[in-house]
Amino acid sequence: MSEEYNKHESAFVEEDTEIGEGTYVWHYAHVREGACIGKNCNLGKDVYVGVGVKIGDNVKIQNGVSVYQGVEVGDNVFLGPHMTFTNDGYPRAEGGWNVEKTKVEDGVSIGAHATILSGLVLGKYCMVGAGAVVTKDVPPHTLVYGNPAEVKGFVCSCGKKLERSDISYQDMDKVVFECSECGEEVEVDREVYKKKEM
Amino acid sequence: MSEEYNKHESAFVEEDTEIGEGTYVWHYAHVREGACIGKNCNLGKDVYVGVGVKIGDNVKIQNGVSVYQGVEVGDNVFLGPHMTFTNDGYPRAEGGWNVEKTKVEDGVSIGAHATILSGLVLGKYCMVGAGAVVTKDVPPHTLVYGNPAEVKGFVCSCGKKLERSDISYQDMDKVVFECSECGEEVEVDREVYKKKEM
Amino acid sequence: MSEEYNKHESAFVEEDTEIGEGTYVWHYAHVREGACIGKNCNLGKDVYVGVGVKIGDNVKIQNGVSVYQGVEVGDNVFLGPHMTFTNDGYPRAEGGWNVEKTKVEDGVSIGAHATILSGLVLGKYCMVGAGAVVTKDVPPHTLVYGNPAEVKGFVCSCGKKLERSDISYQDMDKVVFECSECGEEVEVDREVYKKKEM
Repeated sequence: MSEEYNKHESAFVEEDTEIGEGTYVWHYAHVREGACIGKNCNLGKDVYVGVGVKIGDNVKIQNGVSVYQGVEVGDNVFLGPHMTFTNDGYPRAEGGWNVEKTKVEDGVSIGAHATILSGLVLGKYCMVGAGAVVTKDVPPHTLVYGNPAEVKGFVCSCGKKLERSDISYQDMDKVVFECSECGEEVEVDREVYKKKEM
Repeated sequence: MSEEYNKHESAFVEEDTEIGEGTYVWHYAHVREGACIGKNCNLGKDVYVGVGVKIGDNVKIQNGVSVYQGVEVGDNVFLGPHMTFTNDGYPRAEGGWNVEKTKVEDGVSIGAHATILSGLVLGKYCMVGAGAVVTKDVPPHTLVYGNPAEVKGFVCSCGKKLERSDISYQDMDKVVFECSECGEEVEVDREVYKKKEM
Repeated sequence: MSEEYNKHESAFVEEDTEIGEGTYVWHYAHVREGACIGKNCNLGKDVYVGVGVKIGDNVKIQNGVSVYQGVEVGDNVFLGPHMTFTNDGYPRAEGGWNVEKTKVEDGVSIGAHATILSGLVLGKYCMVGAGAVVTKDVPPHTLVYGNPAEVKGFVCSCGKKLERSDISYQDMDKVVFECSECGEEVEVDREVYKKKEM
């Protein structure tokens, strides 16, 4: 399959990697051994993909992003310019090194320059604002930002910010929005909804 | 003119670009087609300049900065190390992509690691502090920092922070400082001045 | 000695540099003239080391870090991915440029994406959290984070976060912890301790 992806002459792709058809690996990017990257992805300038990292299909990785060992990325994910993952909670130059896992579920968008601490799950279609520092799990379809990042709203899969007027139904357990842009029904747990009064 | 600028051997400059005399394009930088860069600029290591971007004269771009499509940069601007622009308010990997414009006026300084959201104007000679996340327009000659960035003071064109004791005149509409360093008169709107009690 | 360190083919190391045995200089890194780097260091992808910078032994510099002129780094330091130093308090594109010094003492860890303002001392074995913006000196063995960064706790040389239950002795001047992980005694000034009630 390795003939079907596109690599700029200045990028390095190590051996024993799998890269899907239609994927582009741009200037000065580096893909380490054992990495597995899906179809129709875009790896921008200076991107780094660590040893054994798995990345889904249709993932857009903007300039300067390092996807370290221990990070798993689903399909249709947007990793904004110069955002950063981590994989060690209390790093020291000396001694051992524990890789803590981070999971980025399908459809997630992470804004420019955001920082994601290690050991977290970023739920489906959540959106992390530019410059946010994410220190805990992010529930699906929430919009989070700030340092530390907090839930500030809710977003549809299509990217539209959901408003109070988009709520079509709610009960003790959940709040259901109907997106005024694309019509999709988005369900949010009531406990999560209560984090952001609308 | 293309013979008169300086490019490191490891940098890529695409065709149909204009780069002014005395400008340096350093290691691993990448200038995309249609970009127009003025005279006596400095593009540090790993800098990226997007398709069709316009940059003025005497602009210092520090290491790792991506100036994306939609960003316009005036003269005498300082873009600090690893600061980041953005150009899409609610990005998703799927679907369309709206380029929102950002304008950086003459003499602006942006500190290290600052993040500038899209669709904003950074006014003449404003200064954005290191690590700031800028979410709204920045008035001329203000100093802003924090996440989100707020007006924290006022600065002269020469870079000096202006003090209360530098105020030479004020009325209902404006406050005028006389810089104790260079003597320049700096006028600030009263509405802007009131954002930061001195 | 220059035969005994390891340099990736895509990296640039200028003349008149000293690099210790066992040190690795990885992809697209750039070491400027006069820099002096110790033994068994690791310079990750895209790292930049400025003119005349001194770096100790066993220092781990993660991807995308720029260690600018004016920064001095001790032994056993961890510089996390895409953290950034600065060296000018009020930068402007025009006019002069004052290099303000920053000292990173032995054993310090700086988290991913942290920003360190210029003219500061980061004390022995302190730990700067991911995404922090450090605007003042950091006392030894403290954990700091946030924007601006504040003292949030205390850490042992081994990386363990110290708890109230680890306090073995205190008087008017100091608080002494005994690490429950490695047994090391860690002494903190009472004035520093009082910044973070435990």
